[in-house]
Amino acid sequence: MLKVNKNYANLKESYLFAEIEKRVSEYTKANPDKKIIKMGIGDVTLPLPGIIVDAMKNACDEMGKKETFKGYGPYGGYEFLTGKIAAYYKANMGVDLEIGEIFISDGAKSDVGNITDIFDVNNTVLIPDPVYPVYLDTNIMDGRNIVYMDGNEANGFMPEPDGYEGDIIYLCSPNNPTGAVFTREKLKAWVDYALERGAVILYDAAYEAFISDPSLPRSIFEIEGAKKCAIEFCSFSKLAGFTGTRCAYTIIPKDLVIDGNSLNAVWYRRQSTKYNGASYIIQKGAESVFSVEGMAEIQKNITYYKENAQIIAAALKEVGITYFGGENSPYIWLKCPNNMGSWEFFDYLLSNVQVVGTPGEGFGSMGDGYFRLTSFGSKEATLEAAEKIKSLLK
Amino acid sequence: MLKVNKNYANLKESYLFAEIEKRVSEYTKANPDKKIIKMGIGDVTLPLPGIIVDAMKNACDEMGKKETFKGYGPYGGYEFLTGKIAAYYKANMGVDLEIGEIFISDGAKSDVGNITDIFDVNNTVLIPDPVYPVYLDTNIMDGRNIVYMDGNEANGFMPEPDGYEGDIIYLCSPNNPTGAVFTREKLKAWVDYALERGAVILYDAAYEAFISDPSLPRSIFEIEGAKKCAIEFCSFSKLAGFTGTRCAYTIIPKDLVIDGNSLNAVWYRRQSTKYNGASYIIQKGAESVFSVEGMAEIQKNITYYKENAQIIAAALKEVGITYFGGENSPYIWLKCPNNMGSWEFFDYLLSNVQVVGTPGEGFGSMGDGYFRLTSFGSKEATLEAAEKIKSLLK
Repeated sequence: MLKVNKNYANLKESYLFAEIEKRVSEYTKANPDKKIIKMGIGDVTLPLPGIIVDAMKNACDEMGKKETFKGYGPYGGYEFLTGKIAAYYKANMGVDLEIGEIFISDGAKSDVGNITDIFDVNNTVLIPDPVYPVYLDTNIMDGRNIVYMDGNEANGFMPEPDGYEGDIIYLCSPNNPTGAVFTREKLKAWVDYALERGAVILYDAAYEAFISDPSLPRSIFEIEGAKKCAIEFCSFSKLAGFTGTRCAYTIIPKDLVIDGNSLNAVWYRRQSTKYNGASYIIQKGAESVFSVEGMAEIQKNITYYKENAQIIAAALKEVGITYFGGENSPYIWLKCPNNMGSWEFFDYLLSNVQVVGTPGEGFGSMGDGYFRLTSFGSKEATLEAAEKIKSLLK
Repeated sequence: MLKVNKNYANLKESYLFAEIEKRVSEYTKANPDKKIIKMGIGDVTLPLPGIIVDAMKNACDEMGKKETFKGYGPYGGYEFLTGKIAAYYKANMGVDLEIGEIFISDGAKSDVGNITDIFDVNNTVLIPDPVYPVYLDTNIMDGRNIVYMDGNEANGFMPEPDGYEGDIIYLCSPNNPTGAVFTREKLKAWVDYALERGAVILYDAAYEAFISDPSLPRSIFEIEGAKKCAIEFCSFSKLAGFTGTRCAYTIIPKDLVIDGNSLNAVWYRRQSTKYNGASYIIQKGAESVFSVEGMAEIQKNITYYKENAQIIAAALKEVGITYFGGENSPYIWLKCPNNMGSWEFFDYLLSNVQVVGTPGEGFGSMGDGYFRLTSFGSKEATLEAAEKIKSLLK
């Protein structure tokens, strides 16, 4: 008889968003006249800039003509796109990449999820707590030994390597959910650790475009030695509003060779066997992001979200709430006042000022007592929420 | 130190297309005046019908406006598309599907590659030889026990269950590379076998739209009991020319419960953890395939390719070459004349009439002595190749 992957039984059901939905809907039912402000979503809301729309429409037209029709593309993506990404890294991060080190895909979640295919089950995985739940769940599915690294206010929710022993290390900066960003020094400590142990760092840089402080690294490859120990995941989702359009890229340096295995070559084998490349149309849209006009347009959108973050941060500061992030990140991570638990504070905000956020314990047990607010809503809604939070917590 | 997945070392390097490329380029270099006709590609060449192009362009425009912008979509795809697929199955195959049984993705190769995630390593896999190499390689990557089922002229390259013991069974009909198609009776034997053993059939129906003989099943779910033992993979690639546009779907019936595990629920958990849904734009294009005009347009393209297949088949028949497929399939699988090996015949065709096909042994050892020709070229090139093959082999 067929045996199903038994590790799936070890996954915890993800109640977080279902539970939020349930509590909001119960409240709305009991209070039909109250308007809810959603500050919990991790999804963008601004439309795609016209230059991206036009690039994709042109590509659609190409698909409709025999002379310009495109069938299967390169497994790792078209060079018109990987070349632009390499230039972006050179210009913004001072990082030299070969185009063969950049793999285009439909989404960073796919790549973060699929990357574990190339690692043996017998590796120990280090995962920060709290963090984006995909790192944890994908490794539970594979049955790996997982060690949590506690994030707390003392380490700024960015755990340091001392005392941990692992082979695969997940790092996320700017962090989801805490909005914390690695300094060069703290990131270098991880690179040195990985090099010494022959470990690999899986570096999730999905929110790199939100970093405006030039002293902070936007890519792990800004750190010396990282090309020998790190894989970086990045996405057009938050860079350019592609959450529903779908495009991302993963960088695996050719210098990343562990025990004689080129991880670039192993990942290429994985992708060429289990993936047929990203849509030509979408890749043409992604290419236009890197034009002068495209960059200016997406920068406008990022600035809009960052202003929202500043509005929330200013409100929290005014009423003396401890918070993290919000400066080089779309996320604000606040300490619930009066020692409230995450869900307690959720209910408190919902019932008093009808603002919905995300309870921190949804991102790991160390998140209890904390709460995530996001800046992806409209300016009007954000201003209104900030005022209401201030009046409630002052 | 990080341990890489050691099963990758057991993969054979895929020399097939590289070797074809090498031999063709050497020949072209030595004979710069000769024109090569490519009859080996498995990629479509006709452009997308206008109605699909328009649907995608409209979706691009929606993405550019705040009111109609789409962020993250449902993990399993939008109901506007799954609903149309369910109606297509009802109308064409007489099969009732719930929309929650249909999962939209970026490609059948992704789904066929990723589906093994949900199975334990300790399962025995039955794989026909010759066949599409992805079934084999993905299971080698996972380290499963693999049993080959020999395809030959006696069983029409569609092995039967007698004498085999397996838990996961790959079937592909219309078959790549042989063009063979299951009859209801032969497919029912596999369904009965799977039900009796508690095995699962992974049914690759990527070429179902090429079946015009109403006596042949286009979906495994036309067979009684299949909903309790089969998963079906299908694609817009060959149905509607989406090889570069990327969209596919996988059907996992809710009745498919093995040892208390709903495979539909387990796959949903896999996809919601490691995938963020297919692009809204592409799903809108796929939806338009099912409109009256869309269906008429894609049928025109499929007819065009099938006429090509008929041209090749007629030529082979005229000169007395044994062949399979070509009738309800875009592929023609021929027995190399005079007991030539696959590569020997490849060189023979290339050097004498400059026609390039695919040596059968690229699809498994049982393919040696056979050769694949495809119908995805232009009518003119196909006619020219047919004439040349006739003059050479008569």
